[in-house]
Amino acid sequence: MKIALEKVEPAQIEKRSFEIIGEELGGRSFPKLHEPIIKRCIHTSADFDYADNLVFSEHAVETALAALKRGEAIITDTNMGKAGVNKKILQKLGGEIYCFMAEEDVAATAKERKETRAVVSMEKAAELGGHPIIAVGNAPTALVRLYELIQEKKISPSLVIGVPVGFVNVVQSKELIMEAGVPYIVARGRKGGSNIAACICNALLYMIERDGK
Amino acid sequence: MKIALEKVEPAQIEKRSFEIIGEELGGRSFPKLHEPIIKRCIHTSADFDYADNLVFSEHAVETALAALKRGEAIITDTNMGKAGVNKKILQKLGGEIYCFMAEEDVAATAKERKETRAVVSMEKAAELGGHPIIAVGNAPTALVRLYELIQEKKISPSLVIGVPVGFVNVVQSKELIMEAGVPYIVARGRKGGSNIAACICNALLYMIERDGK
Repeated sequence: MKIALEKVEPAQIEKRSFEIIGEELGGRSFPKLHEPIIKRCIHTSADFDYADNLVFSEHAVETALAALKRGEAIITDTNMGKAGVNKKILQKLGGEIYCFMAEEDVAATAKERKETRAVVSMEKAAELGGHPIIAVGNAPTALVRLYELIQEKKISPSLVIGVPVGFVNVVQSKELIMEAGVPYIVARGRKGGSNIAACICNALLYMIERDGK
Repeated sequence: MKIALEKVEPAQIEKRSFEIIGEELGGRSFPKLHEPIIKRCIHTSADFDYADNLVFSEHAVETALAALKRGEAIITDTNMGKAGVNKKILQKLGGEIYCFMAEEDVAATAKERKETRAVVSMEKAAELGGHPIIAVGNAPTALVRLYELIQEKKISPSLVIGVPVGFVNVVQSKELIMEAGVPYIVARGRKGGSNIAACICNALLYMIERDGK
């Protein structure tokens, strides 16, 4: 079989990818601040469902950009998500990224209380203070506990990225967090993942980097 | 809105997820050694496309399991993938996981030669020796260079997990690696990702763990 590779310089691969995504989205238009996020999710997954399933609360992106610019932390529920976020830009802004899932005390507390580690991680996130960005790419139980913590006024996130993936309570947890009264970006339905959580964080960071702000 | 959560114990969430996946796959049957891999990819992505797009070379799983059991390394092209692999089981088997993408010399060489870092990473993988498992979840250029290195007899992988995601040369690179004459598991088409690469590694590791071998 003859396999023909497209000749694209390394530095141009991402640009060319976004062009192809734009072409395949045809004439569809998105709000200006949503577009780079939607396209990056498609870029990360090659899944055009993200053109339809991402839901943004009003001014979510503006609020998140402002938070990142003043150095708010990102807290995520997977170490894969943490690995994927662009720490260089985040740290330039004065921000940090945390994931508590693999910490021993979190595992011990979770076991004792018969909760998921994600639940305990969110409680630990609440203790950090500030107005962090919470990026949930794995555990719907994290979103459910986060909803409760918000109601109890124990945490006040600048943005909740609600993109856990899966089959048990995933759909419901996303519907719930959209009722929490805080800014959100949610991938409605079952889809999402730590890669999607990281890529939404990166889309926000790249918007700041690009605008040189 | 009333949101009803399903009551599932933390330890049962994964089991229940796999049951739902099985139900939704209906009567479809897969080769015994492929099934846990296919289902775990669906579990990771909530994307049933993986029931159709995964292609296994003959005896790929057997060869990979044998390699892991004798402590062969896993080399991946993303730090997210590395973060996602179950190191506990891997190290119990005597194996290690490597990702060279963020190493300074790799970046410098790539810049100088106007290649991707993924290309240079694969050359570095070849220097490691042994018969590693190469898990490519991001860069099609890694698969293309890997194909060449295999032809040049500079590397002899036990398995290539070919699941880069995206739009530029992704489809072609996967078709190419299927002609390389080494065992492979490939997600045909555009889909894949570091999460899929990690989950295929984990599916293999869990098969070994489960069988207590």
